[in-house]
Amino acid sequence: MRATTIHAPGDIRFEEVPDPTIEEPTDAIVKVVAGCICGSDLWPYRGENPVRAGSTIGHECVGIVEEVGSAVSSTRVGDFVIVPFCHCDNTCAHCVAGVQSACTNLGMTQSGQGEYARVTQADGSLVATDGMPDDHLIPSLLALSDVMATGWHAAVAAGVRPGGTAVVVGDGAVGLSGVLAAAQMGAERVIAMSRHESRQEIARAFGATDVVAERGEEGEAIVAELTRGVGADAVLECVGTDAAMSTAFAVARPGSTVGFVGVPHGVEPPVRRMFQKNIGLAGGVAPVRRYLPDLLERVLSGAIDPGRVFDLTLPMSEAAEGYRAMDERRAIKVLLQP
Amino acid sequence: MRATTIHAPGDIRFEEVPDPTIEEPTDAIVKVVAGCICGSDLWPYRGENPVRAGSTIGHECVGIVEEVGSAVSSTRVGDFVIVPFCHCDNTCAHCVAGVQSACTNLGMTQSGQGEYARVTQADGSLVATDGMPDDHLIPSLLALSDVMATGWHAAVAAGVRPGGTAVVVGDGAVGLSGVLAAAQMGAERVIAMSRHESRQEIARAFGATDVVAERGEEGEAIVAELTRGVGADAVLECVGTDAAMSTAFAVARPGSTVGFVGVPHGVEPPVRRMFQKNIGLAGGVAPVRRYLPDLLERVLSGAIDPGRVFDLTLPMSEAAEGYRAMDERRAIKVLLQP
Repeated sequence: MRATTIHAPGDIRFEEVPDPTIEEPTDAIVKVVAGCICGSDLWPYRGENPVRAGSTIGHECVGIVEEVGSAVSSTRVGDFVIVPFCHCDNTCAHCVAGVQSACTNLGMTQSGQGEYARVTQADGSLVATDGMPDDHLIPSLLALSDVMATGWHAAVAAGVRPGGTAVVVGDGAVGLSGVLAAAQMGAERVIAMSRHESRQEIARAFGATDVVAERGEEGEAIVAELTRGVGADAVLECVGTDAAMSTAFAVARPGSTVGFVGVPHGVEPPVRRMFQKNIGLAGGVAPVRRYLPDLLERVLSGAIDPGRVFDLTLPMSEAAEGYRAMDERRAIKVLLQP
Repeated sequence: MRATTIHAPGDIRFEEVPDPTIEEPTDAIVKVVAGCICGSDLWPYRGENPVRAGSTIGHECVGIVEEVGSAVSSTRVGDFVIVPFCHCDNTCAHCVAGVQSACTNLGMTQSGQGEYARVTQADGSLVATDGMPDDHLIPSLLALSDVMATGWHAAVAAGVRPGGTAVVVGDGAVGLSGVLAAAQMGAERVIAMSRHESRQEIARAFGATDVVAERGEEGEAIVAELTRGVGADAVLECVGTDAAMSTAFAVARPGSTVGFVGVPHGVEPPVRRMFQKNIGLAGGVAPVRRYLPDLLERVLSGAIDPGRVFDLTLPMSEAAEGYRAMDERRAIKVLLQP
């Protein structure tokens, strides 16, 4: 098959690679209908994570089940499925506790930007739609494989509650999804920290009541004013840098929690502030499977339209251009079609 | 009056200092009936925190109200009161949210190891008993001014729930109080990490079902075994060192929370583990006032006997010996009488 690969920082190709095959009886092979590029794919692209030359890249996709292993029972060939980026058996102690991203049989999609993807623990991982979804729903369903569920997780970890104030640090696709999640959970005030006009627009469409374009101490002062000096009831940190974390803790009220979902790079939580102000830190790799049934219902009912984060669609053969567009922030998130 | 003072690391004196006076109309002066030495007093004693030569030391006490300011209405002269180490108005946004330790009018007891102590925000801070308590209750009431409430806060922050497994890292008076708190909250299994026999004994009396004497990786492996490889549902970090924090995160199950109440010294939370395993960190300075009414009821009903952590009682004039005894771990916690 053909799939997107990375050979070195900045070197993205779409080329022939071996077809994925059923390796374990619990596996399934999914024919990819749509994949996409994640903010975290930019870490190796920018050389900030190690690269294994020639390996496939991409962990988000939706598609049609092409083949299943002998132990797969609930997933059927021909099903249209959402593939959570982290695969899980959904039966181990951690899955039962709602932490599917720490499953004892954890797997991860390896070629979501390719023609086919292998899914381990297919029965535990995959969620199928009832029949083939309309084309216009594909972007929103694809968003559930990672970005929307990750934004949702940030809101859950931060303890967003009806009537409260939530601040979202980060205006990437995850941050925007976090805005949507906080609004869905009933936050009365959702403050999006964003300085890019196109992103501000989506944030507002997703339910942001306020947008703060300023960064650092200036932005923190504005949020302090918006929250009457008390601070936010819940803060979603959706970047993963130390600066974003610092802002998150600066705007969080005493007793609140910073929910973090940006893969941390050089982050040092401000322990003394956490201690003095009783501000907690929670979150991590999103247990996508946990949220999928609920999020799927919200998409199908039209309650949410998370596919709006895709502002560029390209054929997979132009994946390299998709990476460039995201790296240069010309695109928020790129959808790739086989 | 006479009070315990610190002049330099290791230099504790009991000497004449100016009497505390009503400085604000919301103040009260309390005649100390009993004070005590806190594990956190050992930081300056050991030179690990800066020392202002000649300043009074001690933030835990109970006593009788001697004088009140003109704006004090609910606290009366003659009341026997528990003095929470952090004073609060109990009406600001943070107090109302249950974070009295971040009160906008925060104060702190300055001469709890002296004959008199000034309490700011007396109405918000002080909790009086109904009449004079029996002498035998004094140690347990004194424990409510900090250590028991702090252990309780660790259990609350860690999310201890009925039927779960709680691990307590640290066998100082706070850790032992944490064991008592976890047991009171209905944890089915309370694992105390303690290598000192006298502390193990109190831990068991307080409700520990298991005691792990080993430290570091060895101790972590034993807890892993005790929790069938899953990890603990809740972990109380009651020390404040990086080693204790590291053990806390090592034994916490994915999706759980480490509740920390030990004043952090050189602590670097393991961010990557937190992220990968979705283990949160919450806690901080205990909002003592929040827990006081409930804890007082538990002491008066005989449900808890937190005063057991005091294994040495001295006159205040021998405070220096009390510090030595705690520094050398000859005593768990020292009660001082004026």
